[in-house]
Amino acid sequence: MRFFSDNAAPVHPAVMAALAAADRVDTAFDGDAWSKRLDAAFAELFETQVRVLWVPTGTAANCLALAAMCPPYGGVICHAHAHIQTDEGGAPGFYTAGATLMLVDGEGAKVSPDAVTALVGGLRKDVHQVQPHALSITQATEYGRVYTPAEVGALGEVARAHGLGFHMDGARFANAVAYLGCAPADVTWRAGVDALSFGAVKNGGMNAEALVFFRTDLADATLYRRKRAGLLLSKGRYLAAQLLAMLEDDLWLANARAANAGAALLATAAGDRLLHPVEANEIFLRLTADEAARLRAQGFDFYDWGAGQARLVVSWQQTQADIRPLADAILAL
Amino acid sequence: MRFFSDNAAPVHPAVMAALAAADRVDTAFDGDAWSKRLDAAFAELFETQVRVLWVPTGTAANCLALAAMCPPYGGVICHAHAHIQTDEGGAPGFYTAGATLMLVDGEGAKVSPDAVTALVGGLRKDVHQVQPHALSITQATEYGRVYTPAEVGALGEVARAHGLGFHMDGARFANAVAYLGCAPADVTWRAGVDALSFGAVKNGGMNAEALVFFRTDLADATLYRRKRAGLLLSKGRYLAAQLLAMLEDDLWLANARAANAGAALLATAAGDRLLHPVEANEIFLRLTADEAARLRAQGFDFYDWGAGQARLVVSWQQTQADIRPLADAILAL
Amino acid sequence: MRFFSDNAAPVHPAVMAALAAADRVDTAFDGDAWSKRLDAAFAELFETQVRVLWVPTGTAANCLALAAMCPPYGGVICHAHAHIQTDEGGAPGFYTAGATLMLVDGEGAKVSPDAVTALVGGLRKDVHQVQPHALSITQATEYGRVYTPAEVGALGEVARAHGLGFHMDGARFANAVAYLGCAPADVTWRAGVDALSFGAVKNGGMNAEALVFFRTDLADATLYRRKRAGLLLSKGRYLAAQLLAMLEDDLWLANARAANAGAALLATAAGDRLLHPVEANEIFLRLTADEAARLRAQGFDFYDWGAGQARLVVSWQQTQADIRPLADAILAL
Amino acid sequence: MRFFSDNAAPVHPAVMAALAAADRVDTAFDGDAWSKRLDAAFAELFETQVRVLWVPTGTAANCLALAAMCPPYGGVICHAHAHIQTDEGGAPGFYTAGATLMLVDGEGAKVSPDAVTALVGGLRKDVHQVQPHALSITQATEYGRVYTPAEVGALGEVARAHGLGFHMDGARFANAVAYLGCAPADVTWRAGVDALSFGAVKNGGMNAEALVFFRTDLADATLYRRKRAGLLLSKGRYLAAQLLAMLEDDLWLANARAANAGAALLATAAGDRLLHPVEANEIFLRLTADEAARLRAQGFDFYDWGAGQARLVVSWQQTQADIRPLADAILAL
Repeated sequence: MRFFSDNAAPVHPAVMAALAAADRVDTAFDGDAWSKRLDAAFAELFETQVRVLWVPTGTAANCLALAAMCPPYGGVICHAHAHIQTDEGGAPGFYTAGATLMLVDGEGAKVSPDAVTALVGGLRKDVHQVQPHALSITQATEYGRVYTPAEVGALGEVARAHGLGFHMDGARFANAVAYLGCAPADVTWRAGVDALSFGAVKNGGMNAEALVFFRTDLADATLYRRKRAGLLLSKGRYLAAQLLAMLEDDLWLANARAANAGAALLATAAGDRLLHPVEANEIFLRLTADEAARLRAQGFDFYDWGAGQARLVVSWQQTQADIRPLADAILAL
Repeated sequence: MRFFSDNAAPVHPAVMAALAAADRVDTAFDGDAWSKRLDAAFAELFETQVRVLWVPTGTAANCLALAAMCPPYGGVICHAHAHIQTDEGGAPGFYTAGATLMLVDGEGAKVSPDAVTALVGGLRKDVHQVQPHALSITQATEYGRVYTPAEVGALGEVARAHGLGFHMDGARFANAVAYLGCAPADVTWRAGVDALSFGAVKNGGMNAEALVFFRTDLADATLYRRKRAGLLLSKGRYLAAQLLAMLEDDLWLANARAANAGAALLATAAGDRLLHPVEANEIFLRLTADEAARLRAQGFDFYDWGAGQARLVVSWQQTQADIRPLADAILAL
Repeated sequence: MRFFSDNAAPVHPAVMAALAAADRVDTAFDGDAWSKRLDAAFAELFETQVRVLWVPTGTAANCLALAAMCPPYGGVICHAHAHIQTDEGGAPGFYTAGATLMLVDGEGAKVSPDAVTALVGGLRKDVHQVQPHALSITQATEYGRVYTPAEVGALGEVARAHGLGFHMDGARFANAVAYLGCAPADVTWRAGVDALSFGAVKNGGMNAEALVFFRTDLADATLYRRKRAGLLLSKGRYLAAQLLAMLEDDLWLANARAANAGAALLATAAGDRLLHPVEANEIFLRLTADEAARLRAQGFDFYDWGAGQARLVVSWQQTQADIRPLADAILAL
Repeated sequence: MRFFSDNAAPVHPAVMAALAAADRVDTAFDGDAWSKRLDAAFAELFETQVRVLWVPTGTAANCLALAAMCPPYGGVICHAHAHIQTDEGGAPGFYTAGATLMLVDGEGAKVSPDAVTALVGGLRKDVHQVQPHALSITQATEYGRVYTPAEVGALGEVARAHGLGFHMDGARFANAVAYLGCAPADVTWRAGVDALSFGAVKNGGMNAEALVFFRTDLADATLYRRKRAGLLLSKGRYLAAQLLAMLEDDLWLANARAANAGAALLATAAGDRLLHPVEANEIFLRLTADEAARLRAQGFDFYDWGAGQARLVVSWQQTQADIRPLADAILAL
């Protein structure tokens, strides 16, 4: 059984059904009935007016958001382990026409207000130094940690104080909200977030993510940027339909809860092997090469994560019954 | 009935079936079994070694090809009515980091060797003028015209003589090959084409196009560019599966033949109203505002194309029975 | 004697003297006393508040202005023979991160309000087409033609109506003002111009041009862009001093008047050979290959300008006595 | 007396004389006699064939070199305190169209082969991570440290092993060579350097730096990039003449030796206040706020460099007699 990535999972049956239901003649690009329902559907979820664009990848959502907030000559503050820094092949530089990622450290890939304040305070305010224009955080983080509404709010304050746009990479936003049990609004716009990459693909989607603008004035130019990036799919209804299916009856939360529950099961088994508290659907644990080999010999696949460490990711599709054998195997090490 | 765009059509049932068949756990990005079969499948179709990348849009395919051939300080020669010039929102400028489209005229949106030669000949070879590095043509053209193998070959000669990369935007490549009845190789690499955007979405696909490199050395850097552009979808198997389904039993040709046949029916009805010979699945015809209104009153939808002109596009899905009423209505004007 | 280009001329003695006077210890970059005087000096000249940045080339001035007005996904309307289109090596694409030059025709390289209106009117207002964000004209034009204040004002109206920034490439602004005899303000901000590339190098300078913002809000970001482009020279006082010297006692106008007068002398000699009315310091005339050879045999150097045509440029330094032999030789053909 | 920056110094009289000598009619841009002599003059200095381009700033030289070596999707390894990272306003991102600076640490702003090896070794070789294409070091470093030929050679080996281009930012190359007493070739191409930004402005020039390509194949495209960046000055002879004057009778070395000697005098006075060994013309020393105030009260100006630290820079123009008062004042603290 694979614990490589939630991207390895298949598409949720409700999403497949939605694709079938959308499989009819309609207007091209985003002129179709499904695309036109997105703003209202997300407005209901977030309890405020929003502008929503579908895109096919999280990288695209993240980078369109950054480009909307940061000019080419500016910088975006993020964690040194942020996905936009380590795993998007330089896409932020492409979308922003060369802006700079300005890196801060912090436990569990979490950005702290103090780290942002220190970075900004250490800059000369002159043209020789790149000045920050945006702050980007990942919820849940690259190490599966979750920001509370208060933590996001504190970052929102810092962002506002320094005139920074505030972006949240929510590739696993669903897992974070499932963990927090809060309203989606509490951990986004009410806490100062301007734009959210709302992940769907890791959570049961096929190839649609939502870029949600709480600062709705950023959307118009982004429509042009999306087209210019080759991201305006001809048959947009097949993306919009996926997103609407994810929101229907809170499928997005149900899927995330399932994945989180599976991860919690593994976390319990891992005990003090854990490198980070498990708050979403990722587990990082100490595992010797020998131990890793023994697990793999039993049919469990996962990534090594540096020497003596491993990462396990649980998907929406894996049931407690699927996962228990791995939990038992870890306990038996 | 809609004759706006072949993008309005639904997805072919065989493609939907292929998506269902691919809906299982596999490796993320392009590490899955379907993605790995693409090179071989297209190599068989084109009778030569190729490197193939799936992308979600034709704009992405076109612009990744151009970026592979043209440095930021260079130019790409294309027709003034080329899709990359008129309908991609400036995407070539984005992907090439600011290269220039160098426009030539020509009937039916066709580029002629003489026009290329004249443009190149009119340039000073100094750093003050942008120098061309690539040539891009559209097959079938934006006015539904088809280049013969000999015509493409003549352009290939000119491209080679001036050291230009040669790209073919084949959003409707299938329609062109269906019209020509030639081997796909004859009108591409055997005629000097280095890279082809092989269209699938307009021809029954959902959201996958193929970027085919005949100059296989261009592919490696393009893999990086694709990721950097946010175009490396997490669950790539759902794109690769669409493309493989299109090739299976030559579905791509069958669909294109159906669309071309429908267009031919309308062309016959249009008679001397035609603005361009109908060689693919698009019909451009003279139509007064009053005539257009009469057709629309009968339930036929289509785009005006400037004053007194209209464009009709037939999709793979529209049968002769679907189309005959419009043909009759045109005859009755 | 050379009539190739006003760039071939040496530096005016007053400018050389200013460089010598500035040759002392002062603050680096633009923190020096000379740089700090620029805003006030140009404000006096233009009778309004301005922000002025020195740059070493006209291309830099032009492209920084365009980047201040046009986002990467936008377009800049200009004449098909505009210097930014034909002779800046694609610099606008570099500085704007890939914006598009949208070309109009017009006699003598002049842009007309109707041409702008027609171009804008012919665009669909959707994301598939690049939308214009700025208008750029050249004063005097690439064919030595001069826009009157009324003509500039009419373009300013059109620009405002369509929400376009309005840039004037004034590489030969001095020659135009010398011809018009108007206040510099009349043909710039009073006529709607937002930014002016105020040329000095062709007019007796060494390597300093002034980018003058009448819309002063555009200057702040441009300071960052100038640094980021490698254009913030370490010893800026040597540029600022040149510009101040040009303004001192209206040296810029005196130099331009001298060059214009020389050109007028040649224009009279050329008579009906002239291809364009001579309003500045450039002469375009019909000249057979044989005639050109005869002039060159007498020691006169100039550029061919297409078949059977030639361009002569008179510099600030060439006296009537220097020029009369060429005038006589032309008359004698 | 100012110890802010060597950029504050005036222009060396020999350079001013060279400007006067070049002040005559000649061909525009880089077609003049002075520009044409550059390759040969630098070839003699470096004992090998080179291609040399004048540019007006060190930032321009650095970034053109990086753009010649690194594609938009690649990375450039440099020190976290490298000038290209900290003080060029994001220019590398502009010139490379968005490439990433990949930072390493190291004492005195020196890059070590081990640091490069560790960075490269820590990367996954996949498209999700930016891959390095070039290495850039500064000679002398931002803290006034000098790489020996052996140290550069070791870096050159590492660069070659990983297929990296190798750039040297030589804003203070003269000071480094003056310190080392080696042949310029020993610390550049013989040690694997592909391109050198040869600084002149800090060392007595006005506004000309030389970009020297030892890998001469990189020059052709750079000519286009230089023009496209607005860096091709119209009257290039005034830049070329400065560079030729610097090479004449090794003025560049004489000036650097003078500055280094002044710095050595201050270093001796500073004693164990020194934060870094003084090998070029910069001194970094511990200085309390009170001590700094006392020095300033005596008329000595310099930059604070973080809390309790200060930077002093000695220029070519400051004599031992100029400097001794400061040395005495430091001793007297």
